[in-house]
Order: sequence, then structure tokens, then C-alpha cells
Amino acid sequence: MIDVEDHMRNLTLLTDLYQLSMMNGYVETGKADTKANFDLFFRNAPGFEFAIIAGLEQAIEYINNIQFKADEIKYLKSLGLFGSEFFDRLKNLKFSGDITGMQEGELIFPTEPILSVTAPLFECQLLETALLNIINHQTLIATKALKITQETTGAVAEFGLRRAQAPDAGIYGARAAMIGGCKSTSNVLAGKMFGIKVAGTMAHSWIMSFDSEIEAFEAYAKIYPNNCLLLVDTYDTLLSGVPNAIKVFSSLKSKGYSPVGIRLDSGDLAYLSKKARKMLDSAGFTDAKIFASGDIDENIIVSLKLQGAKIDMWGIGTKLITSTPTPALGGVFKMSGIFNKNGDFEPKLKISDTHDKITNPGIKTVYRVYKDDGMASADIIALKGEEFDTTKPLTISHPVDRWKTKTFVSYSLRELPIQVYKNGCLVYSLPKLPEIIEYSVKSRSEFWEEYKRLINPHEYKVDLSDQLYELKQKLLNENKKYNS
Amino acid sequence: MIDVEDHMRNLTLLTDLYQLSMMNGYVETGKADTKANFDLFFRNAPGFEFAIIAGLEQAIEYINNIQFKADEIKYLKSLGLFGSEFFDRLKNLKFSGDITGMQEGELIFPTEPILSVTAPLFECQLLETALLNIINHQTLIATKALKITQETTGAVAEFGLRRAQAPDAGIYGARAAMIGGCKSTSNVLAGKMFGIKVAGTMAHSWIMSFDSEIEAFEAYAKIYPNNCLLLVDTYDTLLSGVPNAIKVFSSLKSKGYSPVGIRLDSGDLAYLSKKARKMLDSAGFTDAKIFASGDIDENIIVSLKLQGAKIDMWGIGTKLITSTPTPALGGVFKMSGIFNKNGDFEPKLKISDTHDKITNPGIKTVYRVYKDDGMASADIIALKGEEFDTTKPLTISHPVDRWKTKTFVSYSLRELPIQVYKNGCLVYSLPKLPEIIEYSVKSRSEFWEEYKRLINPHEYKVDLSDQLYELKQKLLNENKKYNS
Repeated sequence: MIDVEDHMRNLTLLTDLYQLSMMNGYVETGKADTKANFDLFFRNAPGFEFAIIAGLEQAIEYINNIQFKADEIKYLKSLGLFGSEFFDRLKNLKFSGDITGMQEGELIFPTEPILSVTAPLFECQLLETALLNIINHQTLIATKALKITQETTGAVAEFGLRRAQAPDAGIYGARAAMIGGCKSTSNVLAGKMFGIKVAGTMAHSWIMSFDSEIEAFEAYAKIYPNNCLLLVDTYDTLLSGVPNAIKVFSSLKSKGYSPVGIRLDSGDLAYLSKKARKMLDSAGFTDAKIFASGDIDENIIVSLKLQGAKIDMWGIGTKLITSTPTPALGGVFKMSGIFNKNGDFEPKLKISDTHDKITNPGIKTVYRVYKDDGMASADIIALKGEEFDTTKPLTISHPVDRWKTKTFVSYSLRELPIQVYKNGCLVYSLPKLPEIIEYSVKSRSEFWEEYKRLINPHEYKVDLSDQLYELKQKLLNENKKYNS
Repeated sequence: MIDVEDHMRNLTLLTDLYQLSMMNGYVETGKADTKANFDLFFRNAPGFEFAIIAGLEQAIEYINNIQFKADEIKYLKSLGLFGSEFFDRLKNLKFSGDITGMQEGELIFPTEPILSVTAPLFECQLLETALLNIINHQTLIATKALKITQETTGAVAEFGLRRAQAPDAGIYGARAAMIGGCKSTSNVLAGKMFGIKVAGTMAHSWIMSFDSEIEAFEAYAKIYPNNCLLLVDTYDTLLSGVPNAIKVFSSLKSKGYSPVGIRLDSGDLAYLSKKARKMLDSAGFTDAKIFASGDIDENIIVSLKLQGAKIDMWGIGTKLITSTPTPALGGVFKMSGIFNKNGDFEPKLKISDTHDKITNPGIKTVYRVYKDDGMASADIIALKGEEFDTTKPLTISHPVDRWKTKTFVSYSLRELPIQVYKNGCLVYSLPKLPEIIEYSVKSRSEFWEEYKRLINPHEYKVDLSDQLYELKQKLLNENKKYNS
């Protein structure tokens, strides 16, 4: 009997073919060991005015587990594209570079580097696709979860596994949803893997497997007297489900148990919840909760609140776990400079016809500016190594419209990225999920609601330091030759 | 050294907690061995007028690998919810029932059973979530891939891994995309796992790692003279990229090689492709292909065609791999009946205020009606065991408006579902991916384009047999007590 670690897979080849074509090309042109810096970030896009970072732990797992074994090498050789030195390098490949990045749970903004990787081109190129896949997905779901949970008063359970885009999206989506504010998941495997609280009671099939709804309710109450949440919409919510639930709750109460409540899964949730609330209250079950599920998202929650719906807890599935209707974050991984033969760093940027696609050059960091009340007021993307003297006033400028400035007299700064890898060694102590959640709650609490609201959030200032701005202008001017 | 099978994970707990709560409840109420039938299907919804089935192979893998090991049992015990007989049953649990289902690649319609599972309640409930997760995802992506590929003349490469919702969505999404009509993937791991052709050449970082674009192109052409597809938009497509590509192509040609072509990844693809085509043609490279990528979907393809864009091949990423803007299929798994103590089957249906949510009772099958020209003309959902005499005319009726009928005189019938499991044994010989693709091409070719077009596809007739319709009406009438 072999003791195999569960969930073990070799994801080393989770990359795009062109990464390998380029890696082989770097070998052939003598550039494989040339160091470069790449930034992972997302651009301005509707629905992504901010994001909650998630996925760093799994990104680190990917990096630590890179292993081109015989099986991977054999497959790559079968493609007939690569040279022998390429394969020699793959055999013992380990990440040897530096990575700085945002902590999981941090609330951040477009264009801010989420990860900065400084490493040989050969390694940077291999990492690109997997890092994007992992960070794009979990950040997407954590951000969606925040949008949903910030609109509710009661706890939100993540219920999306059956509609998630394959197993991993359910598993890691559940993890990300917790970072974004959900309180539990229906996903048992995610519960086991990450210690997340699991939730769930019954489906319609439970009710249908009995001759009548009341028998199904009674049987459930007998087995789970302390966890009695009854699904009331199988036949008719107000004429059958709620009255039957009240009968069973009365019986439970007489035996000294407190029923949890009812679940509404279809129909007009505003109308049904108000009616059901009155029925429960009249029967003396003012503590019984009303749990709502069924194709809910943040916009429906807002609408239900405005209608005075009486919903205490929420189960959100499809639209959370797939981030409907914006199912991709769109993060990119772009070179921001390269070390030349003398070891000097040469900053680079990618030109584009589209203004928003022009990248920021150099090895960068991000500072968050806090006013004395502890609230975040602006972020500054700066070159790594720039110094800021917080005893002196700080004037920041808009990244494009430099005439728009703002001066802080009394303020403090926090550098957001932390060191994750140094010379290939993991130097970051990974927090457990509850710590990440706590960190995220704190990070989010530093922002006024205006920045996080669903519709037209106030634009948070993300400025470029003067040094970074001037470097960018210099490089752009050097590319003027293409102006026609 | 332990010889561990790669990609191995224990996904047994990939389920919702309520499935386990109900399974334990069935044990406690003596129903665990009661057999029932559940159907997996999707309802009518915008964007899903038809679907290409995918994921059966992975669904079978899940079922075959169910294994509650010590680790899973220990975790479940820690929840403090379940009784000892429940755990006894989990320890050696193997699927013991029957499954019929649609073959991968089949073009099917809403409400048609994709899978029908007849098994003890204990097992049906366990399978529900994983089957939905797997079939929902792959069918979603295969269907999206068909929508995209049927609009193009040239081959489509799947390029979405970096934006896929976690690793599995990239891996199995690539597989599903091939079933739906893509010809290759950028995803190396999917290439290795499923034998899919992998594609990809260079990113902007390759260009930026050289002092100039022409040097980058020359170096690439030297290494890959037979696979020279050059990315031309890093600095300026028409002023720099295409002229540089032509220089390199001329040099390749003089050495006896045929350049593949150029890739456009940004800007106005209609304008740039037409201009680039002229430049390539004038230089004598009429065979060089123009490959387009960058946030493309089926609607953009249609628009580019209308504008006369000169694009020969396509790389489609984000919107394919996430099925933007409809990222969930919405499949459900509903009980359609239960065997009573005497072993008699009692059909069941779920009532709902929403007409489309009322289910079809009984153990069912699906027949496809073909006219003499070999084209599909209607599907009939019937009760399993109903007989159709194809020597006699066949009259079918609309599932709701029964006065709408259609009579076929000369026709043939094909029963779509095949037997997958019988008494817990896999009796279906799994086809390889190329066979699935071939099967799908054939299944799709049986439908006139009107049924598959993007906008307002003609409604294909999916009718209920008279026996099924009458059974449904009978059960609905028995539930009249809730009419108020």
C-alpha cells in the first residue's frame, strides 16, 4: 500500500506553449540566464475598480512544486521543437529569483503590481501562465464575494460548487470567497482542505423521497434537532412549506430545541420572506431565521433590501462562483525591465495604441497614504528604493493629468508589497486562512464606503511618483520614431 | 522512490454538505437502499438553445475513483453530524446503480436528460454535485467553442489558460473546446493529458528582451525556421512589425523555408489585417497567414467578417475559456421517481411557480427523428420502454401546446442515450478524444444552420411523447390541492 499524498498533481506543465518556445529561444540566444523583472497586475476595466487579492498561497505551491520529471520531459521531446540544452536546464529547474507581492486579503487597485518577479528570463517565462491563472481566478472570486457580502446584513454561504468551472474553481473559489467575506461553504472538500466552516441541510430530493412534506420535515427534525433548517418551497411555500415547518418547530420547541429556520429557494423572495416572517412571528418563532438562495447576486440583494425583504442569511451559488457577468479579471504579466550584460537594469515599457495598455517601467513598489484618522487616502506607485520623508509634506500627482495634485501634511505611509522569495528561497511565512480573512477585514476597513460601492465608486487616487512618471515619459519619448 | 501517478487527487468529497446530511438522513430513516431515478439536464435559458455534451469521461473517472479513506472519514467525523452506520456505509462505498447518458460531442437541447442515474438514494445523492460540476463546465465550454468556431473559416486555437477559473478550468476547458471545434490549445498540460495539438510561438516579452524588434524576429526565425509566426504589434504594427516580418520572411525564403505568417494581438483588427495582407502580398508572401488574437469572441468574429478583415487563423482566450458573458450552464439533477417498498417505480415531479422549473417524471429516453435526407427534424422525450413503429406515420406534439402537431411519414429514429453503467459496472467503452471530435462533427452536421445560428436560432422541436405528457398531467393534477 503506497501512502500517496491526496490532491497531488504535477502542474509543472500548466503553461502556454509559447513560454516554452521562448525559453528554448533564450537558451539558443544565450539569454536564458539574463535577469528581468516582470509585474503581474490588472488594468482598468468596468467592474474591477478595486480588487481583493487572493491566491498567493497556491501560487507559491506551484512555484515550490515545479518539477520536470521523466514523463514531462518525454512529452516535451515528442513535440520536436526544443534543443538539448533546454532539456538539461529543465531537469533540475528550481526557481532562483526574487518575488515581492501583495498579501492575500489586501484591497488594491488597477495597475498596482500584485507580484513583481525578478529572475532569469528562463524562469520568468515559465511562471507567467500559472501565476496569472491562479491569481486571476482567486482575486476575481474574492472581489466578487466582497461585492456581494458588503450588501448584506446577514452571513453569506458560498453554494456554487455545482456551477463552478470544474473542480478547482469550486475548491479554490470557496477559499477566495471566504477571503472576500463569505462565512461558510457547501463544498465539503474545500472545508477539509482549508478548514472552512461547511453548511447545508437538505435539497428538494429529501422532501420528494417521502410521501409528504410534513413527514420529510419531521424525519429531518428528529435526526438533526439542533440544526433544523427546513426547505419550504418544494410544493407551495406559504400554503404548505411554512405551515408544515411551524408544526415541526413547535414539536421541537416542546422538546427543548431551538429550530434554526427556513430556506426559500424560488419564487418572489421579497414577498415570500415578508409573508413567512409574519407567519413565523405569529407562531412565536421570532428567532427562526429566513435563509434565501437561488440565483442571487449583489444587485438582487440590493433590490430585496429596498423592498424590505426579511432575509437573515444567504446562500449564493452560480453568480458568485463564476463571477457572472464578469468572469475574468484580466490580469497580465509584463516585462518592466531587463539587466544588461554589465548587470545594469534597463527599464522597459510596452507601447500600445491603447493608452491603458502602456505599462509602467522599472522595479516598483506601492505605498498607501493614510490620514491621521487611519483612513487610506491615496496610493503611490513608486520605483523601488525611492525615499519618502514623512516629516515633510507629500504632494502626489495624477498618473496622466500631472496638474492634478494633492498635498498631505500630516500622514503616514505603508509599503504594501512584502518579500515572498529572495534568491529562490521562500522568505514569507504563509498565514492561515483565518489570519488572511482578519487581514482582509482590516485592509477593507481602511477605505470609506464610497470607494467600494457597487455603482460608480468614487475614484481612489493611484498616482505615480515623480521619478516613475519621468522615467515613463523618457521611455515614451524614445519611441517617438513610430509617430506618423 | 514512490511511483505516484501524476494528477492524482481524491475528489470523493467534491460534494455539497447537504448531500451528506441527506445521505445520513436516509440511513437513519431506512431509505439508504431505496432506489430512485435522477435526471441531469439543463433548462431553457438565453444563450443555451442547444448544447454540445462534454465531460462524460471525467464524470466516469469521478465515479470510479470514489474512495472514502481514513483521511476523509476522520474529517467527516470531526463535523459531529453523522451516525456510525453512515460511516460504515462510506468505508466500502462503490457505485452500484445504472446510468444512461448522452455521448460526448452530441448536440442536444434543453430538458433532455444528459444523464439518468438509477441507484440507491445514498449513492444518487453523493454523485449529484460532482456530476453537475463536471458536465456543466465542459458542456458550457464545448458549446461556447462551437458558437465561436462555426463563425470562422480558419482554425481556432484555444488560448485561455491564463484567464481560466483555476487550473482545472484551463485543463478540462481545453479538452471541451476541442470537442466544440477548436483545433489546438496553448495549454501544454492539456496537450500532454489528452493528446491535443499544442500551439504558440512568442509573446511581447520575447521582442522586448532584444534591443530591437528586427533582432528578435531574426533570432526566432533562426531557431524555428519551419514555425515562423511573428508577433508584429509590440511597437507599431504597420510601421515596424509587418515590414520587419517581411524582411525576415525574405531571408527565410532565400534559405528555402516557408514562413508561417504574422500575429496581430491589438489595435483595429479589421484595418490592420487588410493593410498587412496587402503588404505581405506585395512582398510575394501570399501564402503567409494572418493570425488574430486579443479579446475576441463570436460576435467580434462576425463583425470582422462583415468588415472584410483578412484573418486566416484565430487565437481565442478569455471569452472562450470563461464563456463570457454566460459563464454557467445551469444544469440541475432532479429526482424523477422512486421505487417503493414493493419495488414498483413511482414517478415524481417537482412543482414550481415557474413553469420552466416543473420537471418531467419517470425514467426517460430521447429519440431523434430524421427525415430521409438524413437531417434531424425533432427530438422526442419518451418514457423508457415506449415502442415506436417506424413503419407507421409518427405524430409528435408540442410539450405544452399539444394542439401543435407534426406528422412524419417517411423517417427514421435514433435513440440518443447509451448505457454507461449497469449494476455498478462500467459497460461503456470510452472513446478517445479524436473519436469524440469526429462524433461531434457528425452530430452537428445533422442540423440545419438555422438551428445553430447565434441570433434567434430557429426553435428545434423537442416534444414529449403522449405517454410522458399524460403521466405529467396526471401528477400535476394530483397536486392541485395547492391551487388557491
